[in-house]
Amino acid sequence: MSKTLILDGLRVAREIHQQTQKRAQKLREQGIVPCLATVLVGDDPASHTYVRMKGKACEKYGLSSIRIQLPTETTTEELVAKIEELNQDERVHGILLQHPVPSQIDERKAFETIALHKDVDGVTSHGYGEVSMGFGEFPSCTPAGIMAILDYYQIPIEGKHAVVIGRSPILGKPASQLLLNRNATVTVCHSRTVDLANHVSQADIIIAAVGKPRFVQGDWVKPGTVIIDAGYNKGNIGDVDYEACFSKASAITPVPGGPGPVTIAILLKHTVDAAERMLNRLVYK
Amino acid sequence: MSKTLILDGLRVAREIHQQTQKRAQKLREQGIVPCLATVLVGDDPASHTYVRMKGKACEKYGLSSIRIQLPTETTTEELVAKIEELNQDERVHGILLQHPVPSQIDERKAFETIALHKDVDGVTSHGYGEVSMGFGEFPSCTPAGIMAILDYYQIPIEGKHAVVIGRSPILGKPASQLLLNRNATVTVCHSRTVDLANHVSQADIIIAAVGKPRFVQGDWVKPGTVIIDAGYNKGNIGDVDYEACFSKASAITPVPGGPGPVTIAILLKHTVDAAERMLNRLVYK
Repeated sequence: MSKTLILDGLRVAREIHQQTQKRAQKLREQGIVPCLATVLVGDDPASHTYVRMKGKACEKYGLSSIRIQLPTETTTEELVAKIEELNQDERVHGILLQHPVPSQIDERKAFETIALHKDVDGVTSHGYGEVSMGFGEFPSCTPAGIMAILDYYQIPIEGKHAVVIGRSPILGKPASQLLLNRNATVTVCHSRTVDLANHVSQADIIIAAVGKPRFVQGDWVKPGTVIIDAGYNKGNIGDVDYEACFSKASAITPVPGGPGPVTIAILLKHTVDAAERMLNRLVYK
Repeated sequence: MSKTLILDGLRVAREIHQQTQKRAQKLREQGIVPCLATVLVGDDPASHTYVRMKGKACEKYGLSSIRIQLPTETTTEELVAKIEELNQDERVHGILLQHPVPSQIDERKAFETIALHKDVDGVTSHGYGEVSMGFGEFPSCTPAGIMAILDYYQIPIEGKHAVVIGRSPILGKPASQLLLNRNATVTVCHSRTVDLANHVSQADIIIAAVGKPRFVQGDWVKPGTVIIDAGYNKGNIGDVDYEACFSKASAITPVPGGPGPVTIAILLKHTVDAAERMLNRLVYK
């Protein structure tokens, strides 16, 4: 039996961060400090942790960050006004609205307010549409991270059958479009899928993005499949039953250490991309 | 053996047109004539026919139309300028750029110029993104027409396995998103798909959008499948081998008389939608 390759997200993230750091340094030498604004509404502890991690990563790799903290009772209008302010702020190159937001807020409206050229997290419908059409600049970060992992390990995508489990606007859907644009045949499964096991068992590549711990079973997986576990459930448990799937997979991401760290690396990379584009616009205008 | 249901696109189109006509009449009574602007570049005879058909349909159902005819040698900049003019023109509620455009034109750039609220043909990446996210106003017309046919004949979609053959930005891709949003499990196949017959044979619903005459073979189709043939090839031949597939399908669209006529009905409906929205904006502002 051949050995299962562990797809090390930390390693992929490290390589992306190194490139980002060099480019951020160059920008600084030209007087531009790439800057990510993070917006956090309320006091969800997990969200606080994520935002803090992103801020720390910015610091570590030569970006700056602005942290906007709004109270739990913030209205949609207040949040929209704050995002519009950040859209106008020339120091800010990327905007990240940490979700989930409190329930009184129209999250979609808030997302849609983010200017396309600052949507480094890839949450706007316009950005999604551009990515689907093949010319988008900032795909949603986790799907972009998944592609980075596949590419780092030179896993063939063209002609392969990818089964994406989940259809959220920032994970399953954009992952399906990125894979399709790389010439995979793509099946999108979800909570209403009938006979999910049968669909999954036909995959050459499985993208698990369900948000349910150990959801993908070992006996669903055909031998030799590449498994990307994009789930993060409480207690560092993925969407895939890792123990059961490991021996069947030709390659698999661990949890933690799969798409998670690459997601942040992509976010920073996108912010530097946005800063470079802003510089180019200044130079050529 | 049970009888195969013929999904009559003309009948579906007629019903949509009737509703559109009533709504157009109401708008006229309020002083607004819903207006579609068609833009045709060059002298492709098929394109001329399509544009003429659309203009005639407008006339028949109480809409007006403005026909813009540009010479073959039009540049991207000239076309973009014309579209921007139509975006600003308050008499115009919907804009249709007939494609294909001559090869010197950046077709995507021209499409992207169309204002979102006038993109009644559903060609912009932003419109596509909104439709994918589930709140878009104007899905691309042929996919919307396909959904109208399925709904008219009360064909169940939720939980069904839909296989879409083709991934063009105005047909295969948006069709896949509309079906996904209606809770189908969706597989998108295309020219790089390996073992296409195997994928197609698993479908409950086949959407053929390949642009190759009689491409889908009878022995690819499992008994009881619903087949929508969105192909239109020379000589009124669809993408499906109709004779061979007919007896296996539980329901099938004929060519001609399938999604074609419904596409135009949706285009006019969208134009009236856009005019109603413009009226509402005037009333409430």
